[in-house]
Amino acid sequence: MTTFGESHGEAIGCIVSGCPSGVEIDVKHIQQDLDRRRPGQSMVTTSRAEPDQVSLLSGIENGYTTGAPIGMVIYNKDARSSKYEPFITAPRPSHGDFTYSSKFGTRSWGGGGRSSARETANWVAAGALAKKVLLDSKYDIEIKAHVNQIGEIRSPDITFEEMVKNSETNPVRCGHIETASEMEKLIRNYQTEGDSIGGTVYFEMHGVPIGLGAPRFDSFESRLGHAMLSVPATTSFEFGLGNSAKTYTGFERNDPFVFGDDGLVVPETNNHGGIQGGITTGEIIFGEVAFHAPTSIVKKQMTVDWDTGEPKEIQVTGRHDPVLPPRGVPVIESLLYMIVLDFMLLGGRINPDRIDDNPGVYDTEYHPKNPQNK
Amino acid sequence: MTTFGESHGEAIGCIVSGCPSGVEIDVKHIQQDLDRRRPGQSMVTTSRAEPDQVSLLSGIENGYTTGAPIGMVIYNKDARSSKYEPFITAPRPSHGDFTYSSKFGTRSWGGGGRSSARETANWVAAGALAKKVLLDSKYDIEIKAHVNQIGEIRSPDITFEEMVKNSETNPVRCGHIETASEMEKLIRNYQTEGDSIGGTVYFEMHGVPIGLGAPRFDSFESRLGHAMLSVPATTSFEFGLGNSAKTYTGFERNDPFVFGDDGLVVPETNNHGGIQGGITTGEIIFGEVAFHAPTSIVKKQMTVDWDTGEPKEIQVTGRHDPVLPPRGVPVIESLLYMIVLDFMLLGGRINPDRIDDNPGVYDTEYHPKNPQNK
Amino acid sequence: MTTFGESHGEAIGCIVSGCPSGVEIDVKHIQQDLDRRRPGQSMVTTSRAEPDQVSLLSGIENGYTTGAPIGMVIYNKDARSSKYEPFITAPRPSHGDFTYSSKFGTRSWGGGGRSSARETANWVAAGALAKKVLLDSKYDIEIKAHVNQIGEIRSPDITFEEMVKNSETNPVRCGHIETASEMEKLIRNYQTEGDSIGGTVYFEMHGVPIGLGAPRFDSFESRLGHAMLSVPATTSFEFGLGNSAKTYTGFERNDPFVFGDDGLVVPETNNHGGIQGGITTGEIIFGEVAFHAPTSIVKKQMTVDWDTGEPKEIQVTGRHDPVLPPRGVPVIESLLYMIVLDFMLLGGRINPDRIDDNPGVYDTEYHPKNPQNK
Amino acid sequence: MTTFGESHGEAIGCIVSGCPSGVEIDVKHIQQDLDRRRPGQSMVTTSRAEPDQVSLLSGIENGYTTGAPIGMVIYNKDARSSKYEPFITAPRPSHGDFTYSSKFGTRSWGGGGRSSARETANWVAAGALAKKVLLDSKYDIEIKAHVNQIGEIRSPDITFEEMVKNSETNPVRCGHIETASEMEKLIRNYQTEGDSIGGTVYFEMHGVPIGLGAPRFDSFESRLGHAMLSVPATTSFEFGLGNSAKTYTGFERNDPFVFGDDGLVVPETNNHGGIQGGITTGEIIFGEVAFHAPTSIVKKQMTVDWDTGEPKEIQVTGRHDPVLPPRGVPVIESLLYMIVLDFMLLGGRINPDRIDDNPGVYDTEYHPKNPQNK
Repeated sequence: MTTFGESHGEAIGCIVSGCPSGVEIDVKHIQQDLDRRRPGQSMVTTSRAEPDQVSLLSGIENGYTTGAPIGMVIYNKDARSSKYEPFITAPRPSHGDFTYSSKFGTRSWGGGGRSSARETANWVAAGALAKKVLLDSKYDIEIKAHVNQIGEIRSPDITFEEMVKNSETNPVRCGHIETASEMEKLIRNYQTEGDSIGGTVYFEMHGVPIGLGAPRFDSFESRLGHAMLSVPATTSFEFGLGNSAKTYTGFERNDPFVFGDDGLVVPETNNHGGIQGGITTGEIIFGEVAFHAPTSIVKKQMTVDWDTGEPKEIQVTGRHDPVLPPRGVPVIESLLYMIVLDFMLLGGRINPDRIDDNPGVYDTEYHPKNPQNK
Repeated sequence: MTTFGESHGEAIGCIVSGCPSGVEIDVKHIQQDLDRRRPGQSMVTTSRAEPDQVSLLSGIENGYTTGAPIGMVIYNKDARSSKYEPFITAPRPSHGDFTYSSKFGTRSWGGGGRSSARETANWVAAGALAKKVLLDSKYDIEIKAHVNQIGEIRSPDITFEEMVKNSETNPVRCGHIETASEMEKLIRNYQTEGDSIGGTVYFEMHGVPIGLGAPRFDSFESRLGHAMLSVPATTSFEFGLGNSAKTYTGFERNDPFVFGDDGLVVPETNNHGGIQGGITTGEIIFGEVAFHAPTSIVKKQMTVDWDTGEPKEIQVTGRHDPVLPPRGVPVIESLLYMIVLDFMLLGGRINPDRIDDNPGVYDTEYHPKNPQNK
Repeated sequence: MTTFGESHGEAIGCIVSGCPSGVEIDVKHIQQDLDRRRPGQSMVTTSRAEPDQVSLLSGIENGYTTGAPIGMVIYNKDARSSKYEPFITAPRPSHGDFTYSSKFGTRSWGGGGRSSARETANWVAAGALAKKVLLDSKYDIEIKAHVNQIGEIRSPDITFEEMVKNSETNPVRCGHIETASEMEKLIRNYQTEGDSIGGTVYFEMHGVPIGLGAPRFDSFESRLGHAMLSVPATTSFEFGLGNSAKTYTGFERNDPFVFGDDGLVVPETNNHGGIQGGITTGEIIFGEVAFHAPTSIVKKQMTVDWDTGEPKEIQVTGRHDPVLPPRGVPVIESLLYMIVLDFMLLGGRINPDRIDDNPGVYDTEYHPKNPQNK
Repeated sequence: MTTFGESHGEAIGCIVSGCPSGVEIDVKHIQQDLDRRRPGQSMVTTSRAEPDQVSLLSGIENGYTTGAPIGMVIYNKDARSSKYEPFITAPRPSHGDFTYSSKFGTRSWGGGGRSSARETANWVAAGALAKKVLLDSKYDIEIKAHVNQIGEIRSPDITFEEMVKNSETNPVRCGHIETASEMEKLIRNYQTEGDSIGGTVYFEMHGVPIGLGAPRFDSFESRLGHAMLSVPATTSFEFGLGNSAKTYTGFERNDPFVFGDDGLVVPETNNHGGIQGGITTGEIIFGEVAFHAPTSIVKKQMTVDWDTGEPKEIQVTGRHDPVLPPRGVPVIESLLYMIVLDFMLLGGRINPDRIDDNPGVYDTEYHPKNPQNK
């Protein structure tokens, strides 16, 4: 995926290369996910009215992918840049204004320009393609995220089924209904005060086959770390026992191997979070990502104006999210689908006589019942 | 950096490409850092007796880099593979044994082979080169990490000066001396029990100039996330307020801008952890990485033998670290030096009339006193 | 540059990443070059009526680049796919029909789909950006190509000034006027017969500074070879003495060094074609690229229909070029501009104390009057 | 493949990443090919006595590849740098001396340092691995090159069988015995005069399956162009009809499709040289590469000394090849094997329902008898 576009530019868009051919794609599948990320979808998101309507410009013939690059474009419809004029020479605190102008000597200032999280609409569009490719495959891969903490309010642990069932039914995208309504109240309180609040997103990946991830800098977790920290406003990523692994002993944390019902070797427990030695074990992969509070707030803040050389009191009065995790959920899911598909296309578990059969093939028949060491 | 090598193979090594020419390199500088990572350096590390002596095979002429790739090799001297024979077909819990054999249908089983953290000696060697290049530059970049938690014992917050001064004087590499000795006791207790324990490493990067990091997937924090999660046994990475950012409001977290003593625009506080919009602000970059407990423990554990099809009780009796953060400190510092140098070589802050002057140049004269928006 | 698009799809387009900020861009500059590649511009090109109007969707603020990715899109206006229906299951000889369908199990069949040279409009748009960046720089880089052979008719050697002055004044884009009109006649003859003909494009690059190109797989000539063979229908690339170098002795071909008028070291002659050891010498870089005849011809040809299992006689009656080099000229120039800019942004000649001054900088002050070997 | 090393440094070496696991590797296979490239093998090569003995440092377990990176090193044994001292500040004409020193401000001057073709020993070692992987596969891929021209002496066209049978039996590596002995005489004449001469290498690739190569910048021919122009001293690359394609009409050159004996669609002729639309057709891929004469000659030449600021007459009296194609043959074969294997590991021809079966698989069962357009 290669992307372009600014928040208030003419359009944003992306090119997805390497998508397999012969996959049925309906623009509705993509639109569905975009609608989950779309601004203006509820009281806890910005009221900017962007339909986020995606056009598929190439790579599809009669509804099926051709294997050629897929170009997608989303035109910006509701950009109101005038509200950003006061900040052209007075950087909003903790935005990209200061660093972009410092690095490039200029910036697209309307709506945060290139640094706006509007960019993530591209990711969701590309992720919807990856999801469809995987859904059509014989693998039973299911990925779901939900908001498990806003401010101090944390959701109790819930099952994957609850995450899937409940998280899309409330504006906060928390899979635990009671917590969701508490979170919503908290968010509204901060919004009323002209402030915003941080939170976390928890995700689970089910059905990811054994063998994805290459040793070292292409390990599954390093790709996760790269992707999750690329999401705007994230400050932390953990998987498996995460940060709390520091307090576990090796004996407590190690997962013994057993023979499963089908006679295949499996870890008995999953403290490792689905990844060992950088490679997936076939167990559930789970993790958590923290988002800081949105930096665009109505409350008065101090900055400086480098034109006048004076301090300046500002209020960021555009239409902004009071909290990020609810819209972060589809963004994170999209990146996770892309990571899995990328690794699968690179080839996963390798048959010992793979070259004779299938170079680069992901061979599910070769389950490690007897991964013999030749 | 491209690397190769297994724990018990003939040698490990790496190639460092793109190193600037004209930098004075003494193999001693590299050896110094290798010695900090080296096994057998203290009671809290494995007793494997590896001198880890590096040879520089190319890219240096009369003690100065030539700009050509630098090949380095470290021969393995003290590999005793026989202790690993019981595990050839009986994967050690939570190691890479199961996934490597599953993915590749074979594996180098001695000492953990390719999945061994012995690989990180390559990173330290390459990082020492990056460090030397930066030390010789006019930038005053200083990077230091220390162990700030082992099990439940956490170091109080200390100054950077304390980190630098104290962390290399004790085997745990904790910058707070009293805590260090408590940690050491704790580690010995677990070691005596045949168990191991997790912990965390905290790092600070001082003097990193403004403007490093490109928007989106090449943001400074996504590169950090990628690198830190590539370190063997890491399960979490956070920077700035990290995971705790979830409980801060936007108003609490936002850092106002002020004019500094020299009249230049600077953030007044550093809740952002030195990165805004994916680009460095010139402030201190700080973060924390969690390591799970070493998986190689003497305590009896259960696994299966896929040859016999039976469960198997095992003890991992090789020479192993009872805790990872102390040796992780130089590894993390090395990766951080490489990241900074990489970004600087790509070009950082850009002069508006850069092409006329210096394409790709990192121009420190262009401080954002007046980053005008053309 | 990343591209997408099929000949008869909704649109083609590309994303240009890494373009420096602060460069003035007028869409007219891009359009100008696109018009040189545009179909329907003369009798010797296809009559397809594509305005090839490019839209700049991002990366530009008030007419200046911001350093963010530049998204460009060109909508297809005059696609008439019905003429391609006979070939859906009957591959046109020597097109991409057979290989695309074999590889992907499907293809975009209208107008040749992804394999159409219509894709090169993207390259010309991106190349126009690169050209503008270089024109605005202090370097005096000028690149020009012209058609120096069609069938058996070869242009005599002409000066660079003649190439620049004459090649855009005739439809064949040959810099030698008399030869151009002979070529035009020859092309019309083949066109009348329903046939097509091959030819070559010769190029010169003036003012490319010393030091571009990295040893080995990033050598200047390997990048040229890669780019030139990526142009559709090319079958040969040579630079300097090219293929004829095989008959020269070392003594005949070697270029002695002398001191130039300004006291700087320069090669006295230029048999090396501006590149030594994979790195530019500051001399003129010149080369030649051969194009085979267009494969779409009206003359009857045989193929098979894999639906019926029968041989099939076909005529390709769309609107097609009878010869490729005239429209190949702007495509080749565009790629050459991109290659030069790419290498310059990576950093070219390196000052020995570069890190103290300018990491990655292209420093023209450091001319090899005294490139001392430390 | 990533490489390092200078001609007169301590060692050269490379790391081969992504090699499939489970392939039997004997160091003898690699040594065999290295011996074909080795200096001192005959009168027409340099007399430098390098055994070129390769050590495999990693990635192999009990004689089989493990899928982990393979590190290889070749120590330099017979470097005599003193003969290069006169050239430290007086660049040898048409070598890399001038450009390396200009770019880097320093260089490894002994034996040409990094710019020496000694580097290609690494390529031959890596290519031998790729060859073994392909030989062990079910594909019947055979690649052979031979010297088809030295100076004005050109070999008549010969069969592939003759190339294979004869080209390794004479020091010139020409598959036409009579021509070979004429070439040898010619070379000796030039050598006696203290001069050198150019020539060409012709290659054929048999059995490369349909579907390798991705559209556009990853087309099979652009990868060939990139690789062939990376070989030191090459100045031209052509495939299929090559440069002569310029004189063919479309009707003459186009290759009609027919049903083969097995009922599958095949091109009847092979003017296209095995590649259409950037993708292989299953036909023989053939091409030619030109090498200029070696630049190191005993004859007196003029250069300048930038230390004294004076012109200087020099003689390059080291041990040098009088001609390059004979040793270029194994180098070119090695690169071709690597290109084919690279493309095959990326996945070639795609089954329409590939995701359900085998993502990324090269599926030979799916021959384009009926490549239906869905």
